Amino acid sequence: MTDFDATRAMFDLPEGLIYLDGNSLGPLPRVATQQVGALMREEWGTQLIKGWNACGWMDTPGRVGDRIAKLIGAGPGTVVIGDTLSIKVYQALAAALALRPERSVVLSDTGNFPTDLYMAEGLLKTMGGRVELRLVEPHEIESAIDDSVAAVMLTQADYRSGRLHDMRAVSAAAHAVGALTVWDLAHTAGAIEVRLDADGADFAVGCTYKYLNGGPGAPAFIYVADRHQRDSTPALSGWLGHEQPFAFDLDYRPGAGIDRMRVGTPPIIACAALDAALDIWDMADIRDVRKKSMELSERFIEEVEQRCPQLTLASPRDPQMRGSQVSFAFDQGYAVVQALIANGVVGDFRAPDILRFGFTPLYLSVDEVVRATEILERIMNDRLWDRPEFKTMAAVT
Amino acid sequence: MTDFDATRAMFDLPEGLIYLDGNSLGPLPRVATQQVGALMREEWGTQLIKGWNACGWMDTPGRVGDRIAKLIGAGPGTVVIGDTLSIKVYQALAAALALRPERSVVLSDTGNFPTDLYMAEGLLKTMGGRVELRLVEPHEIESAIDDSVAAVMLTQADYRSGRLHDMRAVSAAAHAVGALTVWDLAHTAGAIEVRLDADGADFAVGCTYKYLNGGPGAPAFIYVADRHQRDSTPALSGWLGHEQPFAFDLDYRPGAGIDRMRVGTPPIIACAALDAALDIWDMADIRDVRKKSMELSERFIEEVEQRCPQLTLASPRDPQMRGSQVSFAFDQGYAVVQALIANGVVGDFRAPDILRFGFTPLYLSVDEVVRATEILERIMNDRLWDRPEFKTMAAVT
Repeated sequence: MTDFDATRAMFDLPEGLIYLDGNSLGPLPRVATQQVGALMREEWGTQLIKGWNACGWMDTPGRVGDRIAKLIGAGPGTVVIGDTLSIKVYQALAAALALRPERSVVLSDTGNFPTDLYMAEGLLKTMGGRVELRLVEPHEIESAIDDSVAAVMLTQADYRSGRLHDMRAVSAAAHAVGALTVWDLAHTAGAIEVRLDADGADFAVGCTYKYLNGGPGAPAFIYVADRHQRDSTPALSGWLGHEQPFAFDLDYRPGAGIDRMRVGTPPIIACAALDAALDIWDMADIRDVRKKSMELSERFIEEVEQRCPQLTLASPRDPQMRGSQVSFAFDQGYAVVQALIANGVVGDFRAPDILRFGFTPLYLSVDEVVRATEILERIMNDRLWDRPEFKTMAAVT
Repeated sequence: MTDFDATRAMFDLPEGLIYLDGNSLGPLPRVATQQVGALMREEWGTQLIKGWNACGWMDTPGRVGDRIAKLIGAGPGTVVIGDTLSIKVYQALAAALALRPERSVVLSDTGNFPTDLYMAEGLLKTMGGRVELRLVEPHEIESAIDDSVAAVMLTQADYRSGRLHDMRAVSAAAHAVGALTVWDLAHTAGAIEVRLDADGADFAVGCTYKYLNGGPGAPAFIYVADRHQRDSTPALSGWLGHEQPFAFDLDYRPGAGIDRMRVGTPPIIACAALDAALDIWDMADIRDVRKKSMELSERFIEEVEQRCPQLTLASPRDPQMRGSQVSFAFDQGYAVVQALIANGVVGDFRAPDILRFGFTPLYLSVDEVVRATEILERIMNDRLWDRPEFKTMAAVT
């Protein structure tokens, strides 16, 4: 059983803040500041260049990748960290397309996170326009998979609504016609029980600054199913994906296994923060986390629907069908989110009208969730959102 | 005049170590540990998601880019940081090729750093093989530029020998036949007076963990000449290069100016270390740095040639023709470097037989350089390199 009081104690959360935005940026793990400081002073500061070998920096991407693999149902040697999620999408999709050179369609949905679609656009354009990006509505995905499809590229949990795709069913439908799958786990890694190996995923990518608490802009990760590793050709063929980076050959030869998905020099300081954050995950069982997350989100929906009839649920009602977030629609959603923040409850807003709340059992309690809905109720009843200071639009992530 | 005692005092260097490897990984700036710690505790820890706006995280890539621009002869708004150098090479070369769609050759040389060549290989393969990568010897570059060439892609200072390409002459030769240039400044940013704007560079990229001291795996940078910014199509079209990232449009529209070369979520912790390191550069004039670097390297060559006749200079003898490093060839070079390290002098080895030494005036004195040559002399005279413990090969960067 996961001890959630113990995991909560591992985070440095501002007193009194109710943080329902861990699905956007996880909070600071106490140990991260120490470990990053130690890495800078005791490794970089004293070992300098020797740190690459003496401190194991060079092996960090695979070592931390293996830690993440455990959380997403992936075997050792199938995950490596580095770059950003956008870059990893490009990499995974390019590898999938190279395995299906005779096919002409990337299938995705309108619920995918935009950067995934943008990166696909950029890749397909770079490839000369032979392959098209076909978008359908999320519920149409399975029926749209046919044998023109090279890769089905989906975000497992919709960033706005939290709606989940069925990884097993989509993978089966894809494989039935010889297509491959590329999964973005941005909103599911650390949020639900992802089973990449068991559910037949071919490629997956994700970020680590949400439920994994790796810090702002923390490194992304990429998964390549064991069966594809030997035949996956890296389009982003960087030196650290080379079979022998330090032979300095003029020609590229992909490295063994998942290592070939490494690209450039790994961001060691950022990796240290992520590595520290993953210590907390060693204390947690993802099944317990998922169970508590459903309790939290069910209670939240119940309270909000009772207290705030002005808001409309924009997430699936069945907790099995959504990730670890709940969204409500309201035409003044932006102002409501600002009013909430001003009153110590942090959620976020997604255009055009979505209030989004993330539930992160490692540090969030039922009491806090109920308290958040009380504050939301007051904002709605007193129309606090109507104040001009809450209506000025600014970028939020 | 730059006060080099003052800049030296800004670094946390191990007592007694003579560090001639700042061309591979710069040492720890004292202020970096503090600033990274402060960012983690006071920004991430207290602001959480609000940090993206309240703490200016979102603007970091352009703001820090402008700081780097000053050091490489580039105007404001022409440089942005992010990703790794490998990724930035891909991005710059793809943008250059998209501006010359009718041309079929990327011209580079055998002295280029391998990852640049590997990334080009990957890009050209992804593009379907229409464009070829043509490699010539470094001295043949200018004469090999003809009107089949879309882009000349070069590393300004050879990573092995420090030999410099003439940016102005190569740019002129390229432009004379309508070709574009892509410069890798890994070994020149912070080392010599780079004049991107004045010398007519079209695109440039670089890393920040060498002479700029940003830390292991620090973010890279990309420069796009003002005249190309509006027409440069990003191949790596990530959401933060979008005109309106937070509109979450399904289609990509490139942002204004250099911002379109941003890709994914910026690595804020790593950026903080780099940002801190650049404070030291505010105290330095690159012309003074270059002048002192030439003094250091000239003295080093003189001493080594006098003391160690077994070693052969592998860098240009004219200091104007080399960057801020000096290399010597010796068939047991690897073992010599290991023996040096064991005796408190850190240089590095590059296959097959190159001993490489970097000269970094911000923290290196003439006395230290002379002392290093005394130690090298002893190692050579006493054949200390012949000990078995110095002959075990390990990866070094």
